[in-house]
Amino acid sequence: MLHIIGLGLNEKGISIEGKETLKKCKKVYLENYTVEFPYKLEKLEKIINKKIISLDRTQVESEKLVIEAKEKNICLLVYGCPLFATTHISLIEDCKKNKVKYKIIYASSVFDAIAESGLQLYKFGKIASMPTWEKNFTPDSFLDFVKENKSINAHSLILIDIGLSFKDALNQLIKGSKNKKFKLNNVLVCSQLGFKSKFYYNSINKLKKKKIKTPFCFVIPGKLHFLEEEVLEKFT
Amino acid sequence: MLHIIGLGLNEKGISIEGKETLKKCKKVYLENYTVEFPYKLEKLEKIINKKIISLDRTQVESEKLVIEAKEKNICLLVYGCPLFATTHISLIEDCKKNKVKYKIIYASSVFDAIAESGLQLYKFGKIASMPTWEKNFTPDSFLDFVKENKSINAHSLILIDIGLSFKDALNQLIKGSKNKKFKLNNVLVCSQLGFKSKFYYNSINKLKKKKIKTPFCFVIPGKLHFLEEEVLEKFT
Repeated sequence: MLHIIGLGLNEKGISIEGKETLKKCKKVYLENYTVEFPYKLEKLEKIINKKIISLDRTQVESEKLVIEAKEKNICLLVYGCPLFATTHISLIEDCKKNKVKYKIIYASSVFDAIAESGLQLYKFGKIASMPTWEKNFTPDSFLDFVKENKSINAHSLILIDIGLSFKDALNQLIKGSKNKKFKLNNVLVCSQLGFKSKFYYNSINKLKKKKIKTPFCFVIPGKLHFLEEEVLEKFT
Repeated sequence: MLHIIGLGLNEKGISIEGKETLKKCKKVYLENYTVEFPYKLEKLEKIINKKIISLDRTQVESEKLVIEAKEKNICLLVYGCPLFATTHISLIEDCKKNKVKYKIIYASSVFDAIAESGLQLYKFGKIASMPTWEKNFTPDSFLDFVKENKSINAHSLILIDIGLSFKDALNQLIKGSKNKKFKLNNVLVCSQLGFKSKFYYNSINKLKKKKIKTPFCFVIPGKLHFLEEEVLEKFT
């Protein structure tokens, strides 16, 4: 059986059900390529009392896990919410196809923890992802989502590619906005959500001077309710 | 200190951090008015090994909790994600105002568990809530959100008021759609998400014949990717 287990946002974010399930797993794998962990993996190993085997994208996307799960209880640990990434949905489909039992064990996502900013989760639109730009490849379609969300007054969460520094991500946001003729007002930066959550709400120029720890994400607010505005202003 | 602790979606959905924190709390309160629990509270009491005191809306919204938290460690348990409801954000603001320490301990939300339907979480728009209709009060503004989301091809999650049966909720959806001139195609119904998750994807007429357990929610899909469609079709 394959157990896909969410880790939540800090080293003690896994649920009781998740921890209990781990006990019966012969192998404990970790999806280790879509997020930068805010804590040391050794710390997690101590808490769950299991040796963790890190997997890269090709290993998770191969059928290896599903085949192994035919014969024994194994699990795949995923930072945050276990099914945010499309890859993990495909794993479930592979299980169904191969008649392998599976179970999803949920935990909190970055999206849950954004609520601490005071922005109402109900009012978020589609979630965008900012990839790392290369010399001749500078995709800025994440701003199309922001524009669409703005058109219905929704807030936009922009997730940031693993490895991208705050300085570089901010530069990509500025350049992308210029290309797309998108006016950037105050931006909310959320750092280490649910681990040591910190929020910064300011103009791009003021944000440039901040030192912000990874992982972090951006939120481009849509229309603000006055209660939302009140809370955000405390983060300037 | 006030600890606002998410319970996740089943009786073992609380995080290790949450369970550890409970040990030091003198009083354990529960927000018990925005959701219908899919399990017995006695079961939860056994698992966390604490007596739970249920609170209604006025008790959570009064300053009672914050004042009590000045003097001792107490906690408020919240089903799912601890900050989904606006009320709980206000509690944090009250803490700040009264210089009372607080901590949020996250857990999974209904929104995280919807991913098991195969719909991509990235593509959801604003979240709507369907209230219970009364004789002379039949608000259908939840469909305005759906229309807005449709305009940007986003999926719409409609949360359902506590106490509303599946039959009544479906009727409200049908009547509301007529009023708003909104064409209802196939609807996804998600029942007992993250507890004993079940999905139904069908036309309104076919859904009418289904017996669906509470709690449940609706999803009105936006533009479907073929991979999403493939998974949804298995729920017809």
